[in-house]
Amino acid sequence: MSSNGSMARVRIALDAMGGDFGPPATVPGALAALEANPELDISLVGDADAVTAELSKHPAAMQEQAITVVPSEGKIEDDEHPISALRRKPRSSIATAMGLLKAGEADMAVSVGSTGATMVTAAMTLGLLEGLERPCIGGNFLGLAPNTTVVDLGSNVDCRPSLLLSFAALGVVFSRLRLGIENPRVALLSVGEESAKGNRQVQESHALLRDSHLNFVGNVEGMDFFTDKADVIVCDGFIGNILIKFAEGLGSALAPYLSRQLAEFLPEDQLRQIAGALWTNMNLPRTMGGPLFGVDGLVMIGHGSSTAEGIAGAINTGLMCRRVELVEGFRQELSELHTAGVGTRAEV
Amino acid sequence: MSSNGSMARVRIALDAMGGDFGPPATVPGALAALEANPELDISLVGDADAVTAELSKHPAAMQEQAITVVPSEGKIEDDEHPISALRRKPRSSIATAMGLLKAGEADMAVSVGSTGATMVTAAMTLGLLEGLERPCIGGNFLGLAPNTTVVDLGSNVDCRPSLLLSFAALGVVFSRLRLGIENPRVALLSVGEESAKGNRQVQESHALLRDSHLNFVGNVEGMDFFTDKADVIVCDGFIGNILIKFAEGLGSALAPYLSRQLAEFLPEDQLRQIAGALWTNMNLPRTMGGPLFGVDGLVMIGHGSSTAEGIAGAINTGLMCRRVELVEGFRQELSELHTAGVGTRAEV
Repeated sequence: MSSNGSMARVRIALDAMGGDFGPPATVPGALAALEANPELDISLVGDADAVTAELSKHPAAMQEQAITVVPSEGKIEDDEHPISALRRKPRSSIATAMGLLKAGEADMAVSVGSTGATMVTAAMTLGLLEGLERPCIGGNFLGLAPNTTVVDLGSNVDCRPSLLLSFAALGVVFSRLRLGIENPRVALLSVGEESAKGNRQVQESHALLRDSHLNFVGNVEGMDFFTDKADVIVCDGFIGNILIKFAEGLGSALAPYLSRQLAEFLPEDQLRQIAGALWTNMNLPRTMGGPLFGVDGLVMIGHGSSTAEGIAGAINTGLMCRRVELVEGFRQELSELHTAGVGTRAEV
Repeated sequence: MSSNGSMARVRIALDAMGGDFGPPATVPGALAALEANPELDISLVGDADAVTAELSKHPAAMQEQAITVVPSEGKIEDDEHPISALRRKPRSSIATAMGLLKAGEADMAVSVGSTGATMVTAAMTLGLLEGLERPCIGGNFLGLAPNTTVVDLGSNVDCRPSLLLSFAALGVVFSRLRLGIENPRVALLSVGEESAKGNRQVQESHALLRDSHLNFVGNVEGMDFFTDKADVIVCDGFIGNILIKFAEGLGSALAPYLSRQLAEFLPEDQLRQIAGALWTNMNLPRTMGGPLFGVDGLVMIGHGSSTAEGIAGAINTGLMCRRVELVEGFRQELSELHTAGVGTRAEV
C-alpha cells in the first residue's frame, strides 16, 4: 500500500470514517471505485486500526499500491456544531482529508459524513472562491428531472438576494459543464409566475437576477421541476433541503405502496427490480453524490446513508467534475458576475 | 328548478363559473353530488345563459327541484389581482356565491375558481374568525400520508410566527374533527430536528409553539410527512404551496414513468388503473377539495383543474366538514389560544 505519483493519476482523499457506516462502507466503496478507475490513488483517511481492519477483509487490497491509509483522530458527528467540533477535533478524518487537498497532496476530497461539517471544514481549510460569502450545494437531485439543476440544496437559510444570485451563477456552471446545457435558463422558485408573487426574498432576488447577465426566465412553481421551463432553479437552502428530503421520503413511501399495488401482477423479483429503480430514481444523491459549490478545491459530498455503491458513485461523479474543470468554471463565472457590476458581497 | 327549504336540507352555493372548465364541469359535478346526497339544494351561481345551456344537456336536471340558477356577472380570473378584481366585479360568480352564504341563504360556498380570489372574497364578505389575521388552507394533501395535515397550503408568504401559531391551532382542529385524531401532535417544518436549526421564522415560531397549549413535538424535516412523527405539520404558505405543487408535478411525471417501466408486464387496462390510482394518490386535492381555514363560514376550495368528479368531491368533503362543525371548532380553538395568553395579533 503506497501511493503511485505518476502525473496521469488522480489522487482522492476519502474521509473513511464518514457516513452512517464508516469503514465497512467507505473501504469497499474505495475499492470498487479503484476497480472501475485504475488511474486512482486513494488515501483512506481515518482511524488506522478501523480502516486496516476493514482492508484486511479484502486481501487483494492489502497489496494494492493505489491505496494508502492516512491516520486521523476522531470524527465529527451529525449532531455536533460544525465550527466548534472542527476546533475541538483538528485532526478529525474530515479535517485531515481536507488538509491533503489544501496541501496539494490530493486532487479531490470525498466525504459522506456530516454535510455541515464537510461544508464548514472545506470553507475554512480551502477558502471560498472570490466574490462568494458561503458555499452551497447544487445539482440534479431528481431522477424524473435529470436535467434540472437546483441550488441551494445545502441548507443556507435566510439567504440574501445577492447570495442567491451567486448561487444561480454556480448552478449555471454546473448545468453547462456537468449536464452539457449550452445556455442554461435560470428561474427562481416561487408560488406564481408573476414577478409580484412570492415572498420578499424572491421579489428582491427577481430584480437582481433580471438585471444580471444570466439567462433569467422568471419565476417557476413547484411543478416546474418536471416541466422543462428552466434548467437551473434557484431557491433558499431552507426550501431546497426540505424538497430534497421530501422527495426522499416520498420515494421511500412509494416503493412499498407500489409493491402492494403490483403484488398480484408481478413475480417478486421483477417487483423488487421496479421498486428498486423507482427508489434510486427518487434518491439520486444517494448513489452519485454531488460537488460542493464555491470552495477553492474539488470536494464531493455523498448522502450519509451511502453504502459502498454510494461512495464509488460519489468518487465517479467527482472524476467527471474534475474532467470538466468545474471549480475553474465556478471561479470564472463568479468573476464575470463580479465584473458585470453586481457586487456579490453587496447588501441589497 | 326551485329550492326546497325543509330544515334537514343542506344548501350549497356553487360558483358555477370557476375553474378551468366552468359550467361543463361544475354543472355535472353538482348533479353528481346531488345524486349521491339527495338532501342537497344547490344554487348554481353564474352566467345564466351558460349555466342553463349546460343544464339543458341534462334533461332530468331541468325538472330538478333541488337545483336553482342564481345569475351573476363575470368571473375573477387566475391572473387578476384578487382585491382589485373584487372591486371591479362586485357581482362576479364568486362574490355572489359568497353573498348567499353571508346572507344565510346557503350553508356553504364551493369554488374551484382562483384560490386567491376565493380567499379574499371569503375574508372580505364573511369576515375572519376572532383572533386571526389571515385565512389559510390546510389539509391532508398526500395520499401516501393520508393522516398528515399540512398548514399553510394557501400561499400566505412571510408569515409572522404568531400567524403560524394560529394556523397550527386551526390545523389541530382539522386533524381532530376531520381525521379523528384525538390529541394531534404538532410539528414545525424545518431543516433539522434541533430547535436551533432552521431559518429565523422557524426559530421564533418554535419558541411560540413550545410555550403554547398545543401538543407541540418540535421540528420535523421534509421526509417526515411520511414518518408519522407528527399529525399536523406547520409551514409558511410559500413552502406549503411549493410542496403541494411539487407533489402534483411529481405525480404527473411518475405516472408515465411507471407506465413505461411496467408496459411489458401488464395489460394496458391494468396499467392505466395503477397509474391512475397513483396519480389520484399524488393529487388528493383535485378529487376532494378542502375547506378554507379561518373565515366565518364554511367555504370549500377545489383545484382549478377539477372535473365534475372534483366538484362532487369538494361538495362531499364540505358535507363532512359541516357534520363535524369544523368552523365552530376553529372558533373555539382560536378563542382558547387567545385566552391562553398568546396574543395571536401580537408582534413577536
